[in-house]
Amino acid sequence: MANLPRALENLVAELGKLPGVGRRSAERMAFGLLAAPHERAEALARAASELHQRVGTCDVCGYYTEDGVCPICSDANREDQVLCVVEDSLDVIAFERSASFRGRYHVLGGVLSPLKGVTPDDLNIASLRQRISDPQITEIILATSPSVEGDATAIYLADVLAREGLAITRIGRGVPVGGSLELIDGGTLRMALEGRRSV
Amino acid sequence: MANLPRALENLVAELGKLPGVGRRSAERMAFGLLAAPHERAEALARAASELHQRVGTCDVCGYYTEDGVCPICSDANREDQVLCVVEDSLDVIAFERSASFRGRYHVLGGVLSPLKGVTPDDLNIASLRQRISDPQITEIILATSPSVEGDATAIYLADVLAREGLAITRIGRGVPVGGSLELIDGGTLRMALEGRRSV
Repeated sequence: MANLPRALENLVAELGKLPGVGRRSAERMAFGLLAAPHERAEALARAASELHQRVGTCDVCGYYTEDGVCPICSDANREDQVLCVVEDSLDVIAFERSASFRGRYHVLGGVLSPLKGVTPDDLNIASLRQRISDPQITEIILATSPSVEGDATAIYLADVLAREGLAITRIGRGVPVGGSLELIDGGTLRMALEGRRSV
Repeated sequence: MANLPRALENLVAELGKLPGVGRRSAERMAFGLLAAPHERAEALARAASELHQRVGTCDVCGYYTEDGVCPICSDANREDQVLCVVEDSLDVIAFERSASFRGRYHVLGGVLSPLKGVTPDDLNIASLRQRISDPQITEIILATSPSVEGDATAIYLADVLAREGLAITRIGRGVPVGGSLELIDGGTLRMALEGRRSV
């Protein structure tokens, strides 16, 4: 097998623990860093070591921030009426990238999962209940994943969040834009049929 | 667009500079690290900062090592007769992984490229000429990439390395033209070694 110097092996091992990174990718990354000027490796080291020191979660929505309240929650130009509930911070980025939502977010920090022992107390649900006591909020969009656990979490939330004058909706299900119909699974097609709308 | 806290954005930017890592992958990796215990980020930081401090190149073959001479060059059980000339250290790992070669290596540190201004003086060719003055060496395998530049480098080397009693071969065309050597499976590399021919 390959004889990697230990310091290189350490870096490959650490990079290989990151999501979506396999052994070969980790090697390419580590060798790329070794071939680059040493300032690049030091910049990466600094960025990684400062990460947990500087980034925390927003007091209001749970999204990552360096300040007490994140830029989205403190942005006066966003709509206060609609709250989009997502599983994690990456989902906030996905919505922001789509530029399709101008309301506020609430990050649950996961989904309910009896198998993994994740109960309502493990998610940011108490703070969500507190937020929606604000009568200004008129709609909650449940944007958890279209999976069994994501659906179960949405059903649970729809139940505990219900109050007079609050619309609770679930993001639309169906075929993804640009998707090839023949490659899409039956469950999604069934959802797409159920979710059909007049043209 | 997404509002990333600056410390997180820094890490995404640094990870995104690594070979094969795009913006989205870098975000997944950084968020994964943020969600993990802080020791993981610190371990990555340490590994990255120690990389250039501890890893240098082998005095003999140019492969990465923490000592003066790499474990392959100092391994008494390897064949001294055959020298496999590769572009970079990742190629050594690829050959070692395929377990198809028991000789020694020589890492050029690149290929000749008039367009990028890479001349013979920029590669480890002087040390290669010195090494092959050892009459013990009877064969040089030119294992540069099957690309235009890799072929040109092989032709150049075949010319300058020629001496009495030295066979100079090129790895077989089992490898796809234009492919990147480091990504090729061990079986193909073995075929390429078996199919080598005199230049």
